[in-house]
Amino acid sequence: MTGTLFGLGIGPGDPDLITLKALKRLQSAPVLAYPALEDGDSLARAIVSPHLTARKIEIAIRIPMTIERAPAQAAYDLAAADIGGHLEKGEDVAVLCEGDPFFYGSFMYLFGRIAEKYKVEVIPGVSSLTACATSLQSPLSARNDILTVLPAPLPSEILRERLLETDSAAIMKVGRHFARVRDVIFDLGLEGNARYIERATMENERILPLADVPEDAAPYFSMILIHKRGQAWK
Amino acid sequence: MTGTLFGLGIGPGDPDLITLKALKRLQSAPVLAYPALEDGDSLARAIVSPHLTARKIEIAIRIPMTIERAPAQAAYDLAAADIGGHLEKGEDVAVLCEGDPFFYGSFMYLFGRIAEKYKVEVIPGVSSLTACATSLQSPLSARNDILTVLPAPLPSEILRERLLETDSAAIMKVGRHFARVRDVIFDLGLEGNARYIERATMENERILPLADVPEDAAPYFSMILIHKRGQAWK
Repeated sequence: MTGTLFGLGIGPGDPDLITLKALKRLQSAPVLAYPALEDGDSLARAIVSPHLTARKIEIAIRIPMTIERAPAQAAYDLAAADIGGHLEKGEDVAVLCEGDPFFYGSFMYLFGRIAEKYKVEVIPGVSSLTACATSLQSPLSARNDILTVLPAPLPSEILRERLLETDSAAIMKVGRHFARVRDVIFDLGLEGNARYIERATMENERILPLADVPEDAAPYFSMILIHKRGQAWK
Repeated sequence: MTGTLFGLGIGPGDPDLITLKALKRLQSAPVLAYPALEDGDSLARAIVSPHLTARKIEIAIRIPMTIERAPAQAAYDLAAADIGGHLEKGEDVAVLCEGDPFFYGSFMYLFGRIAEKYKVEVIPGVSSLTACATSLQSPLSARNDILTVLPAPLPSEILRERLLETDSAAIMKVGRHFARVRDVIFDLGLEGNARYIERATMENERILPLADVPEDAAPYFSMILIHKRGQAWK
């Protein structure tokens, strides 16, 4: 009997936004894996740390922060081999995933490497998308609204076209693209309908008017929500 | 001191997909409100029923199932007045929201009526969007993918245009629109990239190949996910 790989959505940052289902798997799995920086720091592990009640075998998946894909691919290959070793021994492995595992999550790279050979169960989590909307007290979408999720690194022309054609938009991973994205929003006259938030539900969450966000200071975990009716329920 | 209205995202159906944060508010609020059919049946209340440990005052918000908006608006007016009465007495009120309160949720109609006068706290939940993806073992989006959420009642021509321009799509609330939506997908040659699911994470969850879904049998809680690369992580 081989073990099962559990991909746990642990939510956007507030430790209490984990689900009961993910919490049970977190506490029962003997092996815990999570993405980490090259120095070993892991936001995902920090989020669940209040819930860790027993010592576990821990696997930090150290992802090199480079533009090239090969080093990250090599890190996932290594992690998949390490995790596979535990699964072969019949040990379940829980992998921590910030937000939801399948919504722009790095878990899918492990999933792609492991699901053909071992049993994998994925537990959905609260995504940053809905966490940002609730922190902003700004409903995302209602009735027959089209909602478009746009990663900020996309070219400005693509952002502009897609913003023109949607009722509601979430621009994710704003970070160092902030000034360019803000300019697109102002050019379209949508600044009155846009709301900016950083690190939703974390202790250092911050909400700012779009015009007041300092250039070059938006973190990776920042998002801009836009609804063309201003308030989705109108 | 007036009470606080808590909008609780209770997740997509599996009672264990509620968050710790929503569970605490569910158990501490003396008044519980939830959407219900005209005969009083409530899916939201059924989802949380395993977690209800004490008697509460309950408010069933009976939403008439009509195309016109006025009767539903009148039901929300009535519920807002009833809830406001409890908030005035200093009692907290928890409103149950299937999935996430601000992702195509009816909670926003109460929010729009109450937030200007009383304190409102919204707790995000696992949405049907990510629940369907995890049940299908099919990642929604990766890297710089554009993800478009499309309500199935939209005209076929709009669905077609938006499907042409996105990397990934979730077509929600398929229900009685199934045959028309399926035809759009086949016309675009996307049937090999489309996955169908009903009632994700509920006991009667069902996954079917698109070609095998009987016409006129898709429930309201059905979704079709499409990713143009087939697998998001490729």
